Amino acid sequence: MDKKEAKKPGREEPERMKVLKAGDFSEWYNQVVQKAGLADYAPISGCMIIRPYGFAIWEKIQRWFDDKIKATGVTNAYFPIFIPERFLKKESEHFEGFMPEVAWVEKKDEGEERYALRPTSETIMYDSYAKWIRSWRDLPLRINQWCNIIRWEVKATRLFLRTREFLWQEGHTAHATEEECEKEAALRAKQYKELVETQMAIPVVMGKKSRSETFAGADYTIALEALMPDGRGLQMATSHKLGQHFAKVFGIRFMDRDGKEKLAWQTSWGLSTRTIGAIVMVHGDDKGLVLPPRIAPIQIVIVPIYDNQTKAAVLKECEKIKKNLAGKFSVHLDDRDAYSPGWKFNEWELKGVPVRIEIGPRDIKNRQVILARRDTGEKKPVKENMIEKTAGEVLDLVQENLYRKARAFMSANTKEAKTFSDLERAIRNKEMVRTPWCGYSECEEKIKEKTTATIRCIENETKAGKCAVCGKPAKATVLFAKAY
Amino acid sequence: MDKKEAKKPGREEPERMKVLKAGDFSEWYNQVVQKAGLADYAPISGCMIIRPYGFAIWEKIQRWFDDKIKATGVTNAYFPIFIPERFLKKESEHFEGFMPEVAWVEKKDEGEERYALRPTSETIMYDSYAKWIRSWRDLPLRINQWCNIIRWEVKATRLFLRTREFLWQEGHTAHATEEECEKEAALRAKQYKELVETQMAIPVVMGKKSRSETFAGADYTIALEALMPDGRGLQMATSHKLGQHFAKVFGIRFMDRDGKEKLAWQTSWGLSTRTIGAIVMVHGDDKGLVLPPRIAPIQIVIVPIYDNQTKAAVLKECEKIKKNLAGKFSVHLDDRDAYSPGWKFNEWELKGVPVRIEIGPRDIKNRQVILARRDTGEKKPVKENMIEKTAGEVLDLVQENLYRKARAFMSANTKEAKTFSDLERAIRNKEMVRTPWCGYSECEEKIKEKTTATIRCIENETKAGKCAVCGKPAKATVLFAKAY
Repeated sequence: MDKKEAKKPGREEPERMKVLKAGDFSEWYNQVVQKAGLADYAPISGCMIIRPYGFAIWEKIQRWFDDKIKATGVTNAYFPIFIPERFLKKESEHFEGFMPEVAWVEKKDEGEERYALRPTSETIMYDSYAKWIRSWRDLPLRINQWCNIIRWEVKATRLFLRTREFLWQEGHTAHATEEECEKEAALRAKQYKELVETQMAIPVVMGKKSRSETFAGADYTIALEALMPDGRGLQMATSHKLGQHFAKVFGIRFMDRDGKEKLAWQTSWGLSTRTIGAIVMVHGDDKGLVLPPRIAPIQIVIVPIYDNQTKAAVLKECEKIKKNLAGKFSVHLDDRDAYSPGWKFNEWELKGVPVRIEIGPRDIKNRQVILARRDTGEKKPVKENMIEKTAGEVLDLVQENLYRKARAFMSANTKEAKTFSDLERAIRNKEMVRTPWCGYSECEEKIKEKTTATIRCIENETKAGKCAVCGKPAKATVLFAKAY
Repeated sequence: MDKKEAKKPGREEPERMKVLKAGDFSEWYNQVVQKAGLADYAPISGCMIIRPYGFAIWEKIQRWFDDKIKATGVTNAYFPIFIPERFLKKESEHFEGFMPEVAWVEKKDEGEERYALRPTSETIMYDSYAKWIRSWRDLPLRINQWCNIIRWEVKATRLFLRTREFLWQEGHTAHATEEECEKEAALRAKQYKELVETQMAIPVVMGKKSRSETFAGADYTIALEALMPDGRGLQMATSHKLGQHFAKVFGIRFMDRDGKEKLAWQTSWGLSTRTIGAIVMVHGDDKGLVLPPRIAPIQIVIVPIYDNQTKAAVLKECEKIKKNLAGKFSVHLDDRDAYSPGWKFNEWELKGVPVRIEIGPRDIKNRQVILARRDTGEKKPVKENMIEKTAGEVLDLVQENLYRKARAFMSANTKEAKTFSDLERAIRNKEMVRTPWCGYSECEEKIKEKTTATIRCIENETKAGKCAVCGKPAKATVLFAKAY
């Protein structure tokens, strides 16, 4: 870059999407994530860097969910990232589930224990629960932590979706009765559903996992599954009824009101930065990211349009409008002198900001602004005294529209299958499949072998129809899809 | 515990402090931290569990500081916990500083790189900064992360103060000019000072570190030092002017407005969960923890006093008062039926809640409550219509009083030393020492050898007096103390 170019505004080549979403979906995803500034590949194999713009989305998710769980009796805490090997080995089913992906710390001294980096924190937390819980007075105990998780997966990195380190929250509760425990697992699943549907604008099906897909060590797992544009299911969150398995293994006993010593009933539940990947995939388009307003770090971007003569007046007007909107919305005024309005339009579209406000000298004269929607591309003039009201309405419309579109896609791409060949065809066509199932793992396994699709969740336990594989009477209606 | 006991309220033995603060200070500290429910020893050598009550203090600190830095141009992000060995080795001074405490991940494959668990994130972050920063338009860049840090110290655990894993924030900025860089380092130091003094109610001295105590790889380090009751200094936070060292090593170059390629100027700054240990030590007393209201998870606890006849009326009144106060303060109503009022008084005193409100049948009749201050133990009746106003005033008084007491302690325990024997005596008497210093590391080293005290910070660079060790003209006035 020579001196002249460096001084001239807007001469840096703007980032642009180089593929279509309907073209190379996987490459499209990588480009959106990186070009929108959400995340980057780390110089560590299988790891990612969550950049400020991506992290700001995570903070929105955190704030919403943290408030929600705190209002329902949960407190946050922090347990070590190091988990003694002997803890992981205590619950054998649990250990085997995680063993292949566990990363270990090099021993400093020969005599030292071997420590894993937490792939999940049940064992380390429940060792403390056993010490802290003595009486019914100590229950329920509800602790959550926001932390990093290490799972040394062999497969290549997919930013947000599959990395060796990711961020999540994990809630861990203990209760006096099974009924309370089941209520808790259901409550957290419900809160996840509200978070995913009303904030992320992603519709989900919610249901129990089949035995083979249940969390290692749980009685049952409630999963929230979303359908991605490539026909794969993505698990947005899970809530596990752990029952008394871990309580037995770690000795979490309490003296009940009736004077009897009992084992506690437990749940655990988690949601991770993976959900950001789902947001990108579900809502993004050929221009890049499209963010649902409620989780957008910037809801409205103001782009001034001026020349040397009009600059001062235009910027003054922009500041005024920004100030008016800032109380209610997250507003950013892009007053960088070094970039042209067109360059800025492109960048904020790539970054998925839901609403753009353009203000030029003519707009000031007409006492109006131009308001553009990211999701539909619509542009319209809005009178100055109507900006706040209109902006609020448009943000709501964008939020609704994104959800409605995603729901329409999901329902159009979920097919009923009565026979095995129906099922195979649907999976081949990148669809999710609703099918009756006999409940036997042999049939589940057979479908998995032939199609690589798995049961994402049990939609309901009505006994209508016959198993698409074996023809025996169905025990449940399940959803099959390939999984992320 | 038999059936009868389990049913009877208040029969569980309350936790109580078993030593005096002025007696066995170290044991007193451990008891406060554990009995108040702040933290616990982890089943991993050298690690701690931050329990919900301790974590809630950290959340208060986080929220305050996070808002502050975001208002001054900082955004949050997340970089991997894994740092390639070759990165650490790039900046040799930096690497040697951390090498003994670095924990490494066991290799999964032979060909794989060796990864450290982050002891700090300069190297991994600046590798990305080199990619992200191209032009003056990309500057300043200010990124912070809240994360866990691993330093495998050999010394035994001191909860919050010295553990192999702790939580912190680390801010890392890059600037176009040295002037901006120095301004940034000073701004963050100033924000830390405000956090520590106005929120944690702990007075600090702020100044540069001597060369030997400067952060590995920095031009200079600004430290905030507080004096603990045992005469040791505790570093509350540091802000480093890194200058261009890391920029050179990691190649962080940008094209400036003048068309010339230049190296970026950098800062980094951090504050950790260690500060919670300082809060405990500075304000706690023989009854346990005493929390400054502004960082107290619970500012006011309401304890109802009732028997079977009066229970309903008293609880109703408590709920009403709680509701009135909840908009302005963090209020907790302790309506547990299983514990007596005395048991609750004891527990909330141990936990350091600044203000307690007691309400019994007679208080209701008199349209008043009893308000008790944790710091002074004062109790007084407050008329119902004055509760909100009085509570606010008392909380302010507690905050001020704690700060004033701590400042008085610090000034009473900081002695001027003109000679080496003055200095030795003061350190022996568990005091901090203000002394002229010639600026040579030989003299600094000699004091360290004889007294184990180190320069906590350079208070000012006035050239008054003579070095207490060598008698040469002083270059600065420095503070010596043993360090945590």
